Amino acid sequence: MMIFSQSEFNLRIKKIKSSMNNKGLDLIIITDPSNMNYTTGYDGWSFYVPQGVIISLDHDQPIWFGRMQDSKGAKVTTYLNEENILGYPENLIQSPPLHPFDYVSNFLKTKKWDKKNIGVEMDSYYYSAECHARLVNQCPDAILHDAHLLVNWIRLIKSENEIKYMKDASVLVQLGMQKAYETIKPGVRQNEVSGNIQKALLSGNKDMGGEYSGLTIILASGISASASHLTPTDKKFVKNEGTIIELGGVKNRYHCPMSRTVYIGKPDYQTNETMKITSEAFENALNKIKPHNSANDVAIAFWKTLSKYGLEKDSRLGYSIGVGYPPDWGEHTMSIRKDDMTILQPNITFHMIAGMWMDTWGLEISESIQVTENGYNLFCDFPRSLHLI
Amino acid sequence: MMIFSQSEFNLRIKKIKSSMNNKGLDLIIITDPSNMNYTTGYDGWSFYVPQGVIISLDHDQPIWFGRMQDSKGAKVTTYLNEENILGYPENLIQSPPLHPFDYVSNFLKTKKWDKKNIGVEMDSYYYSAECHARLVNQCPDAILHDAHLLVNWIRLIKSENEIKYMKDASVLVQLGMQKAYETIKPGVRQNEVSGNIQKALLSGNKDMGGEYSGLTIILASGISASASHLTPTDKKFVKNEGTIIELGGVKNRYHCPMSRTVYIGKPDYQTNETMKITSEAFENALNKIKPHNSANDVAIAFWKTLSKYGLEKDSRLGYSIGVGYPPDWGEHTMSIRKDDMTILQPNITFHMIAGMWMDTWGLEISESIQVTENGYNLFCDFPRSLHLI
Repeated sequence: MMIFSQSEFNLRIKKIKSSMNNKGLDLIIITDPSNMNYTTGYDGWSFYVPQGVIISLDHDQPIWFGRMQDSKGAKVTTYLNEENILGYPENLIQSPPLHPFDYVSNFLKTKKWDKKNIGVEMDSYYYSAECHARLVNQCPDAILHDAHLLVNWIRLIKSENEIKYMKDASVLVQLGMQKAYETIKPGVRQNEVSGNIQKALLSGNKDMGGEYSGLTIILASGISASASHLTPTDKKFVKNEGTIIELGGVKNRYHCPMSRTVYIGKPDYQTNETMKITSEAFENALNKIKPHNSANDVAIAFWKTLSKYGLEKDSRLGYSIGVGYPPDWGEHTMSIRKDDMTILQPNITFHMIAGMWMDTWGLEISESIQVTENGYNLFCDFPRSLHLI
Repeated sequence: MMIFSQSEFNLRIKKIKSSMNNKGLDLIIITDPSNMNYTTGYDGWSFYVPQGVIISLDHDQPIWFGRMQDSKGAKVTTYLNEENILGYPENLIQSPPLHPFDYVSNFLKTKKWDKKNIGVEMDSYYYSAECHARLVNQCPDAILHDAHLLVNWIRLIKSENEIKYMKDASVLVQLGMQKAYETIKPGVRQNEVSGNIQKALLSGNKDMGGEYSGLTIILASGISASASHLTPTDKKFVKNEGTIIELGGVKNRYHCPMSRTVYIGKPDYQTNETMKITSEAFENALNKIKPHNSANDVAIAFWKTLSKYGLEKDSRLGYSIGVGYPPDWGEHTMSIRKDDMTILQPNITFHMIAGMWMDTWGLEISESIQVTENGYNLFCDFPRSLHLI
C-alpha cells in the first residue's frame, strides 16, 4: 500500500533528526500536511482540524496525532506502528474553550517531553496562533523554538521515486491543458471548461488517474486575468480576450504545475509583444539552470531581458515544488528571484512561472523543471506560445 | 459583478461592528477566507500567503490587505474603494526573517491603531503562530483579544440570497452524486469516477456551473471507508465492497454538501442492519428540527435511537454550513451534538451527517438542511438508502 519504501522513509527521518540535532532540538511538532505526508505517508483531507506529527530524537518512529475518526486513516495510509497513532477525543473538536492542543500538551507531559527543546512550525499552514498559545500556556517549562521550514528544506532534493511521481503528474497536467485548449470557445462558460479540465486531470489515461491539487484551477479572462488567483465562474468566453490558465497534475501528492495563455481572436500588439519578450526572458532564464548556478543567476537572466525592453514584473519567477496539499503546491524554500542565493543541485525541482499581470489584462507561461547533472529537464513537452482560438 | 447588494454587505458590517462594540473591540483583523469573503466579497485562491481584512469602528469600509499581485483580484471582486485595498510588497513573500505581518503592524501604527483593543481570529485558518507573534512583538501597546468566531456566529442565519445560492449548489451536488452512481462499476478506477463527478459538479447544467469546494471529493471503499477523510486513488472498485462518497456543490462560494453510500453486489447483514438503524436514527433527528429546539435536542433523538440497537458513534452529527473555502465548508459555530445548546432559528443551515466509521468498513448518509418557520427543508431531494450496483 505504501507509496515509498520503508528505507526511503527511514532516510528522510534520519536527515530530519540530524538537522534537529544540529539545531539543538529534542523534538519537533510538524503540522504542515505536506510534511506530515513526507515523514509518515499520511494522506487524508483532515487538515481542517488540528493534527500533526511529533518526531523526537529519543523515539524511533514519528508519532501521528489527530482526531479519533481520522486515526483510522493514519492506520491505512502510514507505516507507523499502532502505538504511534494517537486519536484525540471528539469533544475537543470546535468546542471552545476546549482545544486539541490541550491533548497534545498533556501527551508531552506524559512522555516527560514538556521540558525539552521543542521545535514548532511557527508559520506553517494550520499551526494557528491558538495551537501555539496552548503549548506555551500548558507546557510552561518547554523551550519552544521556530522549526518552520526545517523539514521543507530537507524536501528540496528529490529521490528518483519522487521524480517518477512528478513525471506521472506531468502526463496528467498536459492532458488537462490540452482539454482546456479543446473546450475554450466563445459562448462557453468558464466552469464548463474547468469541469472538462478536472475530468482530464483526475481521470487521466488508460494507465492511471490523478488527485486533487494543492492549488485549484486558476482560469481568468480579460480584466480578471490582471489578477493572479481568480477562479472559473459562470462567465462566458468572448472574442478578443486573453485567458490565463494554471493547472496542477498530481500523483501520490506530487505536483507538476503548468501555466499557459489562450487568446480568442487576433491578439493585439501589446499582448503579442509582451508574450514575445516574456518568452525570450524565459528562455534566457532556462539557459542559466544548471548545478552550481544560484536561483539568483536564473532570476537575473530573466529580469535583464525584461529591462532591455522596458518591461517590469514585481513578483518572483518561481519556487520549489513537490509533495503538496491545499492551499499550496509550493515548498516555501527556494524562490527564483534576485537575492535568493540557493545553489541549484541535481533533482531540485521547481515551478518557473512568468506571470505578467498587467493593469487590465494578463498572461502567464510556466514550466515545471528538474535540475539535472548538466542542466535541466522540463517535465512537460508542451508549446509555450500564446494559444490562439 | 457583485454577488450580493451593497445594502446586504452594509448590514453584515453593521452587525459585526455591533458585536465588536459589545465585546469592547476597536478593530478586528479577519484572516479566515470565508470571513474575508463575507465582509468584502473577496474571492481568490490567494490564502496560501498571509492576507486579511481589517474592520475598525472608526473606519467606514473594511480594509483588505494582501500580496500586491492579489490586490488586483480585490479590485475585481470586492466593493471596496481603492484606498481600502492594500497590497504589500513581494519581498515579504516566503523570505524570512521578513514577513507580511511586519507590513500589517506598520500599517496599524500609521493609522494610530496600534494602542487599540484589537481582535484577532486566534484559531482561524491561515492565522499562523508567526502572524500573531509579529503583531505581539511589533505592536507592544496593542491590547490583543481573541475574536475567533465573532464573524462566524454572525454568519449563522442566512439571508434569502444566501439560501438561493445554497439551493443552486444543491442542484449541482445532486448532479455529482448521480454521476457517481452512474459511473461506479467493478474494475473502474476511483479517480476515473472522481473525474466524472468533478465534471458534473463544475460544468453543472445548461443554466449554470459550479466552483471548487471547501472540501475535496471524499470517496473510499472497503477498509478505507472505515476512515472519514480518504480520497480517490488508482484503486479499482471491486464486488462486495461498500464505498462512502461525500461531495459539495458550490455556488458563489456557498456550499451544499451531501453524503451517500454505494455497495457493489449484495450487502452483508451487518451493512444492511447498520444502514437501517442509522436511517431510523436520522429520521428521528430530522423530526426534532424546528425553531426553539436546540442542536442538543436533535442529537439526543439520534443517539437515543442508536443506543436502542446498541450502536455507537463518537463523532458529532453535523455542523453549520454556508460560505466556505478550503480546507472546510463548515462554519465552526453550531454543531449537532449533545450539549450544544444552540437554539435553532429559521434560516440556520447545517449539514447533518451520520458517518458510521467502523473497524474495517463504513457508511455515510447526510442532508444539507434549512431550518424553516415550522420545521425544516432539505436542500436536496435524493434517496438516502444504500445505493446498490
